[in-house]
Amino acid sequence: PKIITLPGDGIGPEVTAAAVEVLREVAPDLTFEERAIGGGAFDAHGDPFPQATRDALKEADAVLLGTVGGAHDSPWNALPREKRPESGLLALRKALGCYANLRPVRVQPGLEHLSPLKPGLARGVDILIVRELLGGIYFDGDRKIEGNAAYNTMRYTTPEVERVAKVAFWAAEQRKGRVTSVDKANVLEVSELWRRDVQALRDREYRSLHLNHEYVDSVAMLIVSNPGRYDVIVTENLFGDILSDLAAVIPGSLGLMPSASLGDGPGLFEPIHGSAPDIAGQGIANPAAAIMSAGMLLRHGLSRPDAANQIDRAVALALRERPTRDLGGQADTRTFTRAVLEALG
Amino acid sequence: PKIITLPGDGIGPEVTAAAVEVLREVAPDLTFEERAIGGGAFDAHGDPFPQATRDALKEADAVLLGTVGGAHDSPWNALPREKRPESGLLALRKALGCYANLRPVRVQPGLEHLSPLKPGLARGVDILIVRELLGGIYFDGDRKIEGNAAYNTMRYTTPEVERVAKVAFWAAEQRKGRVTSVDKANVLEVSELWRRDVQALRDREYRSLHLNHEYVDSVAMLIVSNPGRYDVIVTENLFGDILSDLAAVIPGSLGLMPSASLGDGPGLFEPIHGSAPDIAGQGIANPAAAIMSAGMLLRHGLSRPDAANQIDRAVALALRERPTRDLGGQADTRTFTRAVLEALG
Ligand SMILES: CC(C)[C@H](C(=O)O)[C@@H](O)C(=O)O
Ligand SMILES: CC(C)[C@H](C(=O)O)[C@@H](O)C(=O)O
Repeated sequence: PKIITLPGDGIGPEVTAAAVEVLREVAPDLTFEERAIGGGAFDAHGDPFPQATRDALKEADAVLLGTVGGAHDSPWNALPREKRPESGLLALRKALGCYANLRPVRVQPGLEHLSPLKPGLARGVDILIVRELLGGIYFDGDRKIEGNAAYNTMRYTTPEVERVAKVAFWAAEQRKGRVTSVDKANVLEVSELWRRDVQALRDREYRSLHLNHEYVDSVAMLIVSNPGRYDVIVTENLFGDILSDLAAVIPGSLGLMPSASLGDGPGLFEPIHGSAPDIAGQGIANPAAAIMSAGMLLRHGLSRPDAANQIDRAVALALRERPTRDLGGQADTRTFTRAVLEALG
Repeated sequence: PKIITLPGDGIGPEVTAAAVEVLREVAPDLTFEERAIGGGAFDAHGDPFPQATRDALKEADAVLLGTVGGAHDSPWNALPREKRPESGLLALRKALGCYANLRPVRVQPGLEHLSPLKPGLARGVDILIVRELLGGIYFDGDRKIEGNAAYNTMRYTTPEVERVAKVAFWAAEQRKGRVTSVDKANVLEVSELWRRDVQALRDREYRSLHLNHEYVDSVAMLIVSNPGRYDVIVTENLFGDILSDLAAVIPGSLGLMPSASLGDGPGLFEPIHGSAPDIAGQGIANPAAAIMSAGMLLRHGLSRPDAANQIDRAVALALRERPTRDLGGQADTRTFTRAVLEALG
């Protein structure tokens, strides 16, 4: 199988290289091909998602992404919207048809002290957030800024709701069987459709699962004050953006948070942390999230759960034995990656 | 001055009665007139915001609101949207023209242990969230559900942005002088307008204030992992709904969270907690947030800062001496209110 790697900007290249090393170890039959994305791609090709990258995806079995974007004051942020690094990311998701973003939020046993929450609240947290990734207010359609007014439109159709809800139900079947669908149905018509369609799908095809509906403002509270109550959360694009980032702080380090984006074609796998331009190129970035994303690639992208489990165990071990600086340890990128490789073999 | 009270549903009447008692003590010249709102108003008048309530507002100098809405499985939630309790609330905000919702988030010294955050993070938190309350995706205009599709439109104009930003800047002038404006300008045109207009207003009229811009997903993280970094936060309606509820968990009890909604007419003052139908009518609800909202009424609605300060001090004392059950204490509504009255006089 062929993996397209898109290292991107900032620490992206370093952490992606670490993830590739680990993938080579557990799955020697994989081949890798690198392409450009983000700010670097704009600098080199005038486009944050160049045609050569788009073309390469056609032959991909899965895509491993690093990070995109520059510092706050990067000249990339002054470009017109469609040239900015983020636009490359949105175009990539669209080109791959990845409509379901999976964000596991797990507090590793023994690492509760990293959480901003009290240890008693953080302990045992194990949530999977499934975010719709192509529709809603992010979609290309009705949007405008003109003079003193601007608008964007949050839109969903039943097929869009159902396909992402199916991913959430499927995931819940391998977990505790509880799905919370998040909306703002007390105010928004688009949420009324969302709620109705998710419930109808559950009643038609997933009767054994437990489904409930909660408002986004309430979930924002409860995910902090009582995170243990959630198993699988499914929600639309913008709410998912906010809630998945919010939940990601619970384990205490973005350096521990992988993600998978799935659709009908090859999946996209990436750490959720940013490009951290301040430490880029120094060899000290924590590659754990990128390596865990490689694990998700094996699990969800190539259906190799055994190899994925191997990686997860090795990362957990390395985190205990060779924590990186962001976790209060001493290990640099190299040392941590070597610890993972040793734990594997 | 004339105060219209809208006790509403659930524990609303109990906590509003307590707040009125306290107001009578510190401002004997106030007169009170009660009107219906929410689910009870629908039951009695077929409308969650009846004409008699609307009419009474014309003579109000300020409005003191309790809570609206029923339990999860209340028949009110099965009504058509415009008959539901929440619609009464939205119509009330609109009728009063309250475009700026002020939500102070303060961790009281000595009450850090109530926070879900580690005490070191919770200590000293003092944030004011200013939420735009009449526009954005909540507005009446372009919205539809039809067959298998639905949409809502997030819309802003420059005057709408400027009037709420002014409230935030004005508030920052009496605080630490730092404003964070929250948007999703990397994706949304409507956020591009928001960011541009807030910055332009600062550059024109509030040069002495420090203004920065952050993305909503990032703020959702930082408000939990580093709440001490914020002074005043200003944002649009939906982001404000989510972020203000999120921030409200930091002090550890919604029972401690008042709010004020300001516009060009009389202001609206209400506790942010829900109607808690499970404990309604038992006399055990914590009235602290309603009493603190009465304090905000004196401060912002009637420009009586001295009386407002008196209330704040009395509540802080009562919380230490007679904590209610939700705070791990013994006091019921009566006992707590009496403790506030004693501390006052
Ligand atoms: C960079 C931005 C466009 C993106 C999003 O909002 O989808 C990011 O926040 C994310 O969550 O991956
Ligand atoms: C009940 C609902 C309409 C309301 C809102 O979203 O504005 C509530 O969540 C609030 O924040 O006051």
